[in-house]
Amino acid sequence: MKNENNRRIKNKMSVLRAISPDLSRIRLVDQDCLSKRAAQIREALLQGLERPFKHLIDISLGDAHRGGLQPITFVRQVISACLYPSLLDSGRLPTDVKSRARNLLKQCEGESVGSYTATCGLPKIQHSLSEFISRRDRGVPSSPENIFITSGSQQLVLRLFVHGKGSLQTGIMTPVPSSPLFNMALSSLGGAVVPYHLCEEEGWTLRLDEMRRALATARRHCNPMGLYVINPGNPVGQVQSQKSIEDVIRFAAEEKLFLLADEVYQDSVHDPTAEFVSYKRVLHEMGPPYSNTVELASFNSASKGFMGECGLRGGYVEFVNLDSAVMGHIYTLFSTEACTAVMGQIALDIMANPPRSGDASYTAFFENRRNTLNNNAKRVQETLNSLDGMSCQPIRGGIYAFPQLHLPARAVAKAEEAGVAPDLLYCMLLLEEMGLCVGPGSEHLQRKDTHHLRYITHLPDEPIVQPRANSY
Amino acid sequence: MKNENNRRIKNKMSVLRAISPDLSRIRLVDQDCLSKRAAQIREALLQGLERPFKHLIDISLGDAHRGGLQPITFVRQVISACLYPSLLDSGRLPTDVKSRARNLLKQCEGESVGSYTATCGLPKIQHSLSEFISRRDRGVPSSPENIFITSGSQQLVLRLFVHGKGSLQTGIMTPVPSSPLFNMALSSLGGAVVPYHLCEEEGWTLRLDEMRRALATARRHCNPMGLYVINPGNPVGQVQSQKSIEDVIRFAAEEKLFLLADEVYQDSVHDPTAEFVSYKRVLHEMGPPYSNTVELASFNSASKGFMGECGLRGGYVEFVNLDSAVMGHIYTLFSTEACTAVMGQIALDIMANPPRSGDASYTAFFENRRNTLNNNAKRVQETLNSLDGMSCQPIRGGIYAFPQLHLPARAVAKAEEAGVAPDLLYCMLLLEEMGLCVGPGSEHLQRKDTHHLRYITHLPDEPIVQPRANSY
Repeated sequence: MKNENNRRIKNKMSVLRAISPDLSRIRLVDQDCLSKRAAQIREALLQGLERPFKHLIDISLGDAHRGGLQPITFVRQVISACLYPSLLDSGRLPTDVKSRARNLLKQCEGESVGSYTATCGLPKIQHSLSEFISRRDRGVPSSPENIFITSGSQQLVLRLFVHGKGSLQTGIMTPVPSSPLFNMALSSLGGAVVPYHLCEEEGWTLRLDEMRRALATARRHCNPMGLYVINPGNPVGQVQSQKSIEDVIRFAAEEKLFLLADEVYQDSVHDPTAEFVSYKRVLHEMGPPYSNTVELASFNSASKGFMGECGLRGGYVEFVNLDSAVMGHIYTLFSTEACTAVMGQIALDIMANPPRSGDASYTAFFENRRNTLNNNAKRVQETLNSLDGMSCQPIRGGIYAFPQLHLPARAVAKAEEAGVAPDLLYCMLLLEEMGLCVGPGSEHLQRKDTHHLRYITHLPDEPIVQPRANSY
Repeated sequence: MKNENNRRIKNKMSVLRAISPDLSRIRLVDQDCLSKRAAQIREALLQGLERPFKHLIDISLGDAHRGGLQPITFVRQVISACLYPSLLDSGRLPTDVKSRARNLLKQCEGESVGSYTATCGLPKIQHSLSEFISRRDRGVPSSPENIFITSGSQQLVLRLFVHGKGSLQTGIMTPVPSSPLFNMALSSLGGAVVPYHLCEEEGWTLRLDEMRRALATARRHCNPMGLYVINPGNPVGQVQSQKSIEDVIRFAAEEKLFLLADEVYQDSVHDPTAEFVSYKRVLHEMGPPYSNTVELASFNSASKGFMGECGLRGGYVEFVNLDSAVMGHIYTLFSTEACTAVMGQIALDIMANPPRSGDASYTAFFENRRNTLNNNAKRVQETLNSLDGMSCQPIRGGIYAFPQLHLPARAVAKAEEAGVAPDLLYCMLLLEEMGLCVGPGSEHLQRKDTHHLRYITHLPDEPIVQPRANSY
């Protein structure tokens, strides 16, 4: 009996070779290889190994604290006091920190941030967010029950309606340059990426003719159901005008597309002539039939913007014009996961309700906040445009620079020989020779035969390392 | 043109009515309705409305802090100091808290817990966890690279291999009584729940004959690929013997099933004659061909056990015997989501590396810990068995009691008339009349014509509210 068992088992192939076919189609972003190599180099530097540089600078990710941005004191004080309420009895913390922490703890079950919250987050914070949205949108109404607090909400929303195979496969129109994580998530769920190109020459604008072309092409092989927009742009830093948003909304209405608006950079607009206007506000101001029919999900986060608290994992999505039956399904879907981290929820509460004039922390908070918003975008743009072999469209908003690299034909040929995207090879050399880690444009599905770099600009005022395009 | 547009748009049906068919099949657990009602009652009590009780006691969820358990001071101090490093300069915190926090901050990019960590968590914490596992398993080796730190890891692992339709639909064998969230997650991903019944009369044991029956039945309509076990049990509190685990491993090997071992209650064994032994250790001790072929994922969490830190969202999964190509796919899949909350990762680090003898916090930590482990299980069991209409199997481990309710035929008929599961109706009455919120057995897929209650026992020593089975 034992021998028979052993034979049976030895013949066994891995059960898990049969992984989901949707998964076997996705591949890791190049960034991941760069980050791993950067970690090795950092470790080597720590161990005193010789390199052509003393420090490694990693500005490849949308992660402000990694790049050196300091956290906002008020945020950290409130969360610490919630975690360790003995701090409330000390004289160390400002009075408004203490009252905020006490109020938040009252909202938590057992007065502990260690308890689960409701599926969509603490009701009081949903409420704060709806008031924040309404103020932001000049009075457009917002209901707490349409706000779902969670990290990873984009992937959950995709799970709601991505399904089907072949010509019935759900397609989502996504911008090029794209968000690689969004595209990976969509592919891993079995959806089709339907790329539409932003027009670099016009400052990375959305063009309706290109969106119509992309949609018509996609309809031949899948079922496009959604339109994903990122405003202010990631990684390209455009800020859509009200007119541009109206055009997109009309297009979504005519083509029956669910609008997914990634608005996580809403408080990062640097160009004084530009303004962030939310899709929700424009939709409301357009009036019927748009305002009461176009379905919209708008995403925001404590990871970006002035807080940059990526590690706390706090984000939310607001739904507009969704059928109540669909809202029920969304609630059920979100219920399959436990609530998001309570610390991230608290960060969102502070984002929605910063200290007010007269509060003990008011001055320090806005001093902190101004420092984080006073970023390098303009200086980066000017510097990049002054370099040979680089050009950069105006960076109006967001947290990235995305300059075009005009590589010599020789460099492109060398990369192709090595089987590596030319801008990835450039990034690898920049990392090895200068200790500077930036991301390659290739992972954003850039237009054929163009090459770009991506890096975060949202950092404290420090000297910019100047990459040279001809360093091959 | 405008009129034409309006007509087109008015004719539009909701895009999102076409939600994923996998989703439309799942339904909310009953617990959700009870929790919502409990929240309403709590609010009414706060507003001074009259009820037959003064306080609401919610012990329905596996959420120890909600039930009144106090957090462990050392955990909270370390995390607070990481969040707000100014605390490190004060005299308030013990020296070992400070050194732990300083070491952890050095691991974080930009020395901020606001930075993203690597996809699988901070490497130093993966390393701590692997050492912890190896100590727990009496020296069985564990590799950091097989440990993925994340909340919601069960759902991610399911996404790895759940696919297919009809007879190719992936099935997972799951125990009855089950974990409702696991079953919901599996259904929402399009997988088939393949129920196998635990034997209540024998103290909720796993029986091979029942597992073989369940598998043979399932193979007629789907493709069973996985076997989900929960040890110590949720919600039934059994603790598997080494022999029982060996039987399950042999069964999984023979039937080519991927083993998913939910071991989040591993430090909650109350019966002095029982011992937690991990699936990984048993697998190792069985030797080849089992030890080098059977594929295993073992789950653990900071939400359960002595910490009960549900709100911090820290968990991990360790993979054993997975093909390197499959591990690559897992890494890619986990990369589609950002890292888990850094606070939850730190809680895991403390779970893996508690203060040592001689450390400033050693005595207080183990005092705290003993209080949380010194729970009510035995007293609950004895009390329940002394009541008319209730019987309760030995609660050997875990954090729940799951007594059987012997309801009068009249009560069952009344519930059926109302279209409600009899034990759900009982829970609703208990909530309305006594202010006690417990969960109904019906959401755990209990055996036909049996009725149960589920509630957390893992609470401080306080008087137990005694439900009456005949209160209809």
